[in-house]
Amino acid sequence: MKLDAEKAAAIAASSAQEFTTKRPTVPALEEKMFTPIQCLDHGFVRLIDYMGDDSAIVQAARVSYGAGTKKMREDRGLIRYLLRHRHTTPFEMCEMKIHVKLPIFVARQWIRHRTANVNEISARYSVLDNEFYLPSPEHLAVQSTNNKQGRGEALTEAQSAMVLEMLKRDATQAYSTYSELLGEEVGLARELARMNLPVNWYTQWYWKVDLHNLLHFLALRMDAHAQYEIRVFADAIGSLVKEWVPHVWEAFQDYRMGGAFFSKQELEVIQAWIAGETPKFEDLTLSKREWRALCKRFGRSTGLESK
Amino acid sequence: MKLDAEKAAAIAASSAQEFTTKRPTVPALEEKMFTPIQCLDHGFVRLIDYMGDDSAIVQAARVSYGAGTKKMREDRGLIRYLLRHRHTTPFEMCEMKIHVKLPIFVARQWIRHRTANVNEISARYSVLDNEFYLPSPEHLAVQSTNNKQGRGEALTEAQSAMVLEMLKRDATQAYSTYSELLGEEVGLARELARMNLPVNWYTQWYWKVDLHNLLHFLALRMDAHAQYEIRVFADAIGSLVKEWVPHVWEAFQDYRMGGAFFSKQELEVIQAWIAGETPKFEDLTLSKREWRALCKRFGRSTGLESK
Amino acid sequence: MKLDAEKAAAIAASSAQEFTTKRPTVPALEEKMFTPIQCLDHGFVRLIDYMGDDSAIVQAARVSYGAGTKKMREDRGLIRYLLRHRHTTPFEMCEMKIHVKLPIFVARQWIRHRTANVNEISARYSVLDNEFYLPSPEHLAVQSTNNKQGRGEALTEAQSAMVLEMLKRDATQAYSTYSELLGEEVGLARELARMNLPVNWYTQWYWKVDLHNLLHFLALRMDAHAQYEIRVFADAIGSLVKEWVPHVWEAFQDYRMGGAFFSKQELEVIQAWIAGETPKFEDLTLSKREWRALCKRFGRSTGLESK
Amino acid sequence: MKLDAEKAAAIAASSAQEFTTKRPTVPALEEKMFTPIQCLDHGFVRLIDYMGDDSAIVQAARVSYGAGTKKMREDRGLIRYLLRHRHTTPFEMCEMKIHVKLPIFVARQWIRHRTANVNEISARYSVLDNEFYLPSPEHLAVQSTNNKQGRGEALTEAQSAMVLEMLKRDATQAYSTYSELLGEEVGLARELARMNLPVNWYTQWYWKVDLHNLLHFLALRMDAHAQYEIRVFADAIGSLVKEWVPHVWEAFQDYRMGGAFFSKQELEVIQAWIAGETPKFEDLTLSKREWRALCKRFGRSTGLESK
Repeated sequence: MKLDAEKAAAIAASSAQEFTTKRPTVPALEEKMFTPIQCLDHGFVRLIDYMGDDSAIVQAARVSYGAGTKKMREDRGLIRYLLRHRHTTPFEMCEMKIHVKLPIFVARQWIRHRTANVNEISARYSVLDNEFYLPSPEHLAVQSTNNKQGRGEALTEAQSAMVLEMLKRDATQAYSTYSELLGEEVGLARELARMNLPVNWYTQWYWKVDLHNLLHFLALRMDAHAQYEIRVFADAIGSLVKEWVPHVWEAFQDYRMGGAFFSKQELEVIQAWIAGETPKFEDLTLSKREWRALCKRFGRSTGLESK
Repeated sequence: MKLDAEKAAAIAASSAQEFTTKRPTVPALEEKMFTPIQCLDHGFVRLIDYMGDDSAIVQAARVSYGAGTKKMREDRGLIRYLLRHRHTTPFEMCEMKIHVKLPIFVARQWIRHRTANVNEISARYSVLDNEFYLPSPEHLAVQSTNNKQGRGEALTEAQSAMVLEMLKRDATQAYSTYSELLGEEVGLARELARMNLPVNWYTQWYWKVDLHNLLHFLALRMDAHAQYEIRVFADAIGSLVKEWVPHVWEAFQDYRMGGAFFSKQELEVIQAWIAGETPKFEDLTLSKREWRALCKRFGRSTGLESK
Repeated sequence: MKLDAEKAAAIAASSAQEFTTKRPTVPALEEKMFTPIQCLDHGFVRLIDYMGDDSAIVQAARVSYGAGTKKMREDRGLIRYLLRHRHTTPFEMCEMKIHVKLPIFVARQWIRHRTANVNEISARYSVLDNEFYLPSPEHLAVQSTNNKQGRGEALTEAQSAMVLEMLKRDATQAYSTYSELLGEEVGLARELARMNLPVNWYTQWYWKVDLHNLLHFLALRMDAHAQYEIRVFADAIGSLVKEWVPHVWEAFQDYRMGGAFFSKQELEVIQAWIAGETPKFEDLTLSKREWRALCKRFGRSTGLESK
Repeated sequence: MKLDAEKAAAIAASSAQEFTTKRPTVPALEEKMFTPIQCLDHGFVRLIDYMGDDSAIVQAARVSYGAGTKKMREDRGLIRYLLRHRHTTPFEMCEMKIHVKLPIFVARQWIRHRTANVNEISARYSVLDNEFYLPSPEHLAVQSTNNKQGRGEALTEAQSAMVLEMLKRDATQAYSTYSELLGEEVGLARELARMNLPVNWYTQWYWKVDLHNLLHFLALRMDAHAQYEIRVFADAIGSLVKEWVPHVWEAFQDYRMGGAFFSKQELEVIQAWIAGETPKFEDLTLSKREWRALCKRFGRSTGLESK
């Protein structure tokens, strides 16, 4: 990722701003404002604005006249309680706005989170830059054999080189055509010419979301099952949230990311294990997949032949 | 509306805060932060936080690296263009958070605006104060004869006095019962005792909304057809929006509040009038109600007997 | 709950309808259409319309050209998989519309579920009937001592009788005033007169929601922590969902209602218990409340003095 | 658009279904169920399910015990009133579900309508078919000179042929690479391979939306300013809505599509014209663009030199 002089100057100008405000302010986050956090080869996340802090959540939960509770320790306790018990509305009282540059195929996954505000650059209105995503060799992998929507082993070096060559060749060809279509000779409408660009092309948007919905986004997109390319962006946003609302972040790790949900049938097994029993798969109504996963999590033998 | 010492002190403490920020800041709005704007007899609206300004709308619309355009005049022009052509997403990039104290029956109208974040005090959790809404005598009016959901003429002075007396008597009785139910002798659960309180009781909430949805709220609730009691709150919020995003407010007056929509049939009539013709009701497919309203707006005779 | 002749006739007429359709149809649910299921003393839930069935969820998840999978067994398996792994969008492809009559204070809790469509009768437009909620004596209880928003022990018979007497007296008085205000002598606007009615008054609405959001509603409102009065309505809706989408209902019981979420810290304790260890409270970072709840669930001793 | 035998058989099977229901049913719409309406070269819209009819809107608006009003004429009048006065909630009581096959760049515009339910095929999970959009020659046009996001004059025959050749060549190349990447030799993960496909590739989804939000979608996407390729789909959906809720469709034409909004400043000009006056541009605060558009609509001279 490199920014041209004009963009760098605009960012520098924003970063140099200094205003006086009565609004809740988070100094550690202020330092991170406006500067792009690189994601993938040409993408970024940069913080444009934020509303609220840990204390604002407490304040809203209590519908109070002042800010938060008297003591920081109480704020932390209440935040943990609220997150644990899925009281979602107080977390909606904080808001974050970011500017993101991302491949179209990532944007198409991202946009499925509907409770957010979005302004995307329009390829009907603007000519897109010649920037497309090429994975680093170590992120090229074969189709997973046990996960219908995931990756398995990494490609060999030779395979990676070949794949990247092909992707680069087609992308270069696509942009060359795009440029020619827009050129003087044809002058095709932008809204038509863009149809030739592949979904690894970079787009940009402003994205604004409340903290509750942001945590939901992060829980799904920082997860190991999310596609690597969107995980990179989720991690970058996570690094901002951590500075912004540290109590929430801690609770989020404990009560969401680090926790787990068990079904009625799984609870019965856990119960039995704790009681020193050894339930057998044949006597349960779990699926094999569920049984294997449960045993694996708690380091127990499945009693089944390995598949 | 009067606040006890503790609440007044909490508000004063918030107002005295002063932080340094890089975020877009609106000095004129900062001055209005935290202080309650009185609404009705015991209610208020007070600004808790805000995100963005006029320039932030332009910045999002352009997905730009810096803040807004170079020139303020261009910002204004683009904002007017966006509002006129119903480009809604850039206006979603600003956000406002307020603390509101309002009668339950107003809250019930207000909550119908779903695209907002709300934290309301819970009467399951807290004991409600002894505060209920009594209209001022000049706002007591008979049922409108031509608007099934509106008010007509004001009551006489004697009627008003009687009505207020009755409302006050019943409210006092209701709260006395509520207190007795919660008292030591019975100790009824709060979630049950509150069922005795009438809908003119005051409740409170934190309400957070983006500017697009806020303008929609204001367009409906500042309208002459809105119930007076909610209009008072909408006007108070409007006074904040005016300071916050002056270009938006001006455009909102011109392109929304001061404008009007005409149906296909009405456009044909207007067309005819401009051409110097005098279309007759009998030849049109407008309803009588529509015809009368259209003629009235443009100062034309309906050609019908008065109803 | 009793319906006047006109309403009963309208319901009977709807129930007698018979049309031919190609749409997915659930015979067991058709039998339950239109007939009110009584809730509390004067309330009800009645099914007005529905879209989709178990198979429609599978069909959407697969974006398929036909209906569901070939085999019912596969449909069930996929539905369980989707619900377990929180794939929410396929469940949004089913929709239910109900007519509900409910006390205002229940409506105020209910309306907080924003992702739904609502049409409520307007007390600005219509005169409300003289119907208010009075709990049955066995549901009158004191404030819970350990749950700030719940009920504890039932009242004594004498207390119950007194409480009901007081509630009835005030409600009767409130409606008498309401009627007098609306009467010929004053003719107060309906939008004003209604402010005198307490929140145990009955209102009515049409409520339409997709199955994903409905399950979320049910998970919260069928829960033991929900107020009894809204739980009654949730249970009534649940009885409809059970007939409508039996595979979903079964999965919902197994993977949502009957399951549980554990935090990172709780998982460590469970892990230790399974390994035959006996972790002590002092060595953990759980709160006391969390520790007690966890021990209770798995029948383990807390090692703490009883509180 | 051609469907393989399996898909055609699945559609035929759905079309042959016949159930008995008590739900509101629209015979004219039943006939259109399941059969694809062709859109562009390989796309389609096909109706999967619907809930409600004209009468259901009236029923919800009245929160009534029976279906609609007694007389069809009254239903029509109320629907017109509701649409005219922007009472949106009753229209949310109808719901439509469709299966759509559409180019990715159209899907990206479409998905911006957030208040809808979507299930899209996943290119992480499935291999995409070799189907891409090529415009018909008559829809290839140069960039508009006065509309930054629209089309101007059609290309010449020779230009069209050349453009289509280039688009076809690149798409063929892209799919060939995609297939090779997925082939045995490399076996690249599907979630990676798909990044090479351009945005004129076809995708598919199930889309479910309520009638209010559908009308909003149609108002924007049937509009002359919408990109031609999405307009084709909007028109196809419109042809279904017309059969489904004919009263709504008529009102929608009269009060939305055929109508127009005028700003405060424009209303003053119209007022003056009706009064026989001839306001001059110099004395107004309209922009030139607004002035020209207003004069054009009412057949008045601008008094300005042509631009």
